[in-house]
Amino acid sequence: MKYGHFDVKRREYVIDRVDVPVSWTNYLGVEELCAVVNHTAGGYLFYQSPEHHRITRFRPNGVPMDRPGHYLYLRDDETGEYWSVSWQPCGGPLKDYRCRHGLSYSVYECVRGGIRAAQTLFIPRGESVELWDLALENTSGRPHSLSVYSYAEFSYHQIPIDNQNFQMSLYCAGSSCADGIIDYELFYEHARQFMAASFEPDGFDCLRDSFLGPYRTEANPLAVERGECFSSFEKGGSHCAVLQKKLTLAPGEAARLTWMLGEGGAEEGARLREKYRDPAAVDGALADLARYWDGKLSKLQASTPDPDLDVMLNTWNLYQSEINVIFSRFASFIEVGGRTGLGYRDTAQDAMTIPHSNPEGCKKRIVQLLQGLTSMGYGLHLFDPAWFGPQPGKPAFKSPTVIPVPDKASIVHGLDDACADDALWLVAAVAEYVRETGELSLFDETVRCANGGERTVYEHLKRILDFSAAQVGRHGICKGLRADWNDCLNLGGGESAMVSFLHVWALGHFVDAARALGREEDGAHYEALRRSVIAACQRELWDWDW
Amino acid sequence: MKYGHFDVKRREYVIDRVDVPVSWTNYLGVEELCAVVNHTAGGYLFYQSPEHHRITRFRPNGVPMDRPGHYLYLRDDETGEYWSVSWQPCGGPLKDYRCRHGLSYSVYECVRGGIRAAQTLFIPRGESVELWDLALENTSGRPHSLSVYSYAEFSYHQIPIDNQNFQMSLYCAGSSCADGIIDYELFYEHARQFMAASFEPDGFDCLRDSFLGPYRTEANPLAVERGECFSSFEKGGSHCAVLQKKLTLAPGEAARLTWMLGEGGAEEGARLREKYRDPAAVDGALADLARYWDGKLSKLQASTPDPDLDVMLNTWNLYQSEINVIFSRFASFIEVGGRTGLGYRDTAQDAMTIPHSNPEGCKKRIVQLLQGLTSMGYGLHLFDPAWFGPQPGKPAFKSPTVIPVPDKASIVHGLDDACADDALWLVAAVAEYVRETGELSLFDETVRCANGGERTVYEHLKRILDFSAAQVGRHGICKGLRADWNDCLNLGGGESAMVSFLHVWALGHFVDAARALGREEDGAHYEALRRSVIAACQRELWDWDW
Repeated sequence: MKYGHFDVKRREYVIDRVDVPVSWTNYLGVEELCAVVNHTAGGYLFYQSPEHHRITRFRPNGVPMDRPGHYLYLRDDETGEYWSVSWQPCGGPLKDYRCRHGLSYSVYECVRGGIRAAQTLFIPRGESVELWDLALENTSGRPHSLSVYSYAEFSYHQIPIDNQNFQMSLYCAGSSCADGIIDYELFYEHARQFMAASFEPDGFDCLRDSFLGPYRTEANPLAVERGECFSSFEKGGSHCAVLQKKLTLAPGEAARLTWMLGEGGAEEGARLREKYRDPAAVDGALADLARYWDGKLSKLQASTPDPDLDVMLNTWNLYQSEINVIFSRFASFIEVGGRTGLGYRDTAQDAMTIPHSNPEGCKKRIVQLLQGLTSMGYGLHLFDPAWFGPQPGKPAFKSPTVIPVPDKASIVHGLDDACADDALWLVAAVAEYVRETGELSLFDETVRCANGGERTVYEHLKRILDFSAAQVGRHGICKGLRADWNDCLNLGGGESAMVSFLHVWALGHFVDAARALGREEDGAHYEALRRSVIAACQRELWDWDW
Repeated sequence: MKYGHFDVKRREYVIDRVDVPVSWTNYLGVEELCAVVNHTAGGYLFYQSPEHHRITRFRPNGVPMDRPGHYLYLRDDETGEYWSVSWQPCGGPLKDYRCRHGLSYSVYECVRGGIRAAQTLFIPRGESVELWDLALENTSGRPHSLSVYSYAEFSYHQIPIDNQNFQMSLYCAGSSCADGIIDYELFYEHARQFMAASFEPDGFDCLRDSFLGPYRTEANPLAVERGECFSSFEKGGSHCAVLQKKLTLAPGEAARLTWMLGEGGAEEGARLREKYRDPAAVDGALADLARYWDGKLSKLQASTPDPDLDVMLNTWNLYQSEINVIFSRFASFIEVGGRTGLGYRDTAQDAMTIPHSNPEGCKKRIVQLLQGLTSMGYGLHLFDPAWFGPQPGKPAFKSPTVIPVPDKASIVHGLDDACADDALWLVAAVAEYVRETGELSLFDETVRCANGGERTVYEHLKRILDFSAAQVGRHGICKGLRADWNDCLNLGGGESAMVSFLHVWALGHFVDAARALGREEDGAHYEALRRSVIAACQRELWDWDW
């Protein structure tokens, strides 16, 4: 079954057949604001933290799999027929729809009812606002009267409040609409969001259950069906962002409409409405994003005998790694924001991929990982960098209900919870960073251990390698410990070929570093260790010429 | 708008119009297994703990508001038309449907397509199984070929796993079907559930996404639409409990079909299938539940000039309180299982209502509340009784991922998080228990404080009253502290009339107890305190004759 293809020239993945059986997601935003959206515009928006500052809501593992999202409805005001520009939530004939995931933007295209429509979602650099830019064209050969409606569901910001304690959360937020701008506030945080538009709206709804109607879903909103919003707003309830526009297009006539969903109150919405009211400003912001990615990608372009490998190397590997370093892997449709922080091995892997395109981001993650390293030489498998900041353990906001904070002693978990591979990846990440930047002085910087005390980066790395040398089983191969990369493969006391191979690899990186630093004695010692681990691998696992 | 009425004789609330705008829920089960189901059979099932042993899944604050549930679909195999016995999820003409919430059972009635159907949900005493009993009658005057399908969605047991970390949870559970019984297992706990039936099934599905089909919902399952299940099962994925039966009813013919959804593996399902295969056994179990409630309610029946007050006093107040004491208020559509444990004031209020009908349950909750009392005299606003059990702080199961446990020091929260009214309710609860049972010796039993140390129940109560006497503002009225019953009314340093009134009331209960125990000195001391609080109330709040 083929659902799409790479458009190499435009650096896009094009989904020609939009009923993909699992979500194909893209990440919008490269700074503070992030939208995770799939091939039907399902997904969510957050500011800085997907756990503590969610802006739009998403129902993980839902039915259907991808609700809700950042949707635009089109309605033929003559027939009453309506559809979604992004196929879902309304559905319809597959041939009418297409999705294009680009670098920090996604476009949903649809040709239906004599109307060509393209909805482009992206987040401009320098601003915390998601633009929903709609281009319409009347291809029907007759005048066409239409309504267009935006729809997104606001979140209660904190995932635990969003999911659990509705005696409180149904009264924790309020919405209003004035001067064409929707203002949403979570009272306990005085945090606000807005939706504005480039046009004077002909209708609005701030209450989800009013707009959708009872026992309905995003597939058949009552307001769209009847062709008129309810002008709903309230202190309390579940909130949404609906701004409606009615328009009539002459045959062949085109139009541009832009919605703006962002962080901040109505004042911020008014400022950004001015900034992006002109479609040329929207086009400029999209071109700026293209320049941003071009600058990064142009640092390394490969030409190999395999054009598919080139596509992977020259665009998508770096794009994914850069995004992971900005937002971590805890924001997706799989990790749906209930956890904040970093996975040890994933973060090390992501960081080692970007020293040439984002040395600052790479170093920031390396230092955070060193802070999450114990003096024993293993890393904390999952941790929140904030735990090691100025006020460790402090809850992110004062909840109206009593929530116990994690125990510091349980944050720094014991050997029982150590994964055998985690910290070995960091050795390679540090080496790759220094190779690319030449910043040999990093090895002599001092970083605190997660469980107290401090040491140089160089000493941290030695401890990682020594830890793996000590944690071997009866064949001399590294133990798998809690897990050995496959988190779900809990080996008990068993040994892991994968970890010993990784140990050899990390030792090689460190020996290079020791020699570059002129520390010949360490170089010789760890080279000898490397050879002894190779010997064990050859003896027990694989008689290969290393 | 009128949606229903009390059927006083049958002790039921009858919902004649089933499109109620908010969920009207009932609680099934009086022991270890509990189903929370609403007027359209939406809801969920859990065993002991709604956080740690969820059996069926529910989407809190969903769209629509009550998905999924414990549904039966009927399909006319001649026309292909299908509907739900409980109206939702399929919907349809309202006039065809009715719901009756009784004492620990709910009945969903429907007359449609020439078929009369009634789905009764209840949990027999002594067994951890929910019975879905379907009575059918062909009123069409012609032979009728039908299919019937059950549907419930299995949960990953632990609410945090159910909501958040799908990289793990999509691989944590498996399902299979053999000998007409569905077996579901969460691998990490070796915990299993089953669905069995009184009949030989003609089809089954264990995989939610197969049964429903892509981009569909519970409103239009693909298997029901096409009239045939997919025989789906898998290690991994999202699971459901579908057993299909095809049958042909002659004009006027009736049939009974029973599904059984319960705790335990296929062996347990086979045992219970034998037990409840005969409809007479199902009827017997329902009659046994009626006797159980009749025994409790008959302890106190009031006849007042107001028949509506009688309905409240003679059935529903006690029913609600008994259920709250069994399952706590942390299982509902509002508290959707993400928290485990007890709210201090709610539990005290519930306990004080049932000493005559359930003295053991009342005393159990009183002792748990005393264990959640600090030596300073305030209660822990929310707490898990397990925290004060043999292994405090121990996680309920070994997660495949690393989850920090709550800090003991933050469990026993400080004065900042104390609610001014919480523990005052307990004084009245203890007094009401002793008045009903005559168990004066309770006052001299010893109970540990939440923060260490121990004292007698009698001394605990004194400390509660002394705490409120000390925590007064500049008018001599009790401070509201973090909250004064209204959790969201955080008064800062302000005073609360409500808490001083409550203080007077609690003091009265204690003075009675001291005198009954012959402790005249205490009686006089606390009577003097009571009078001084009354004087402050009269002076500052309400010049009323107390």
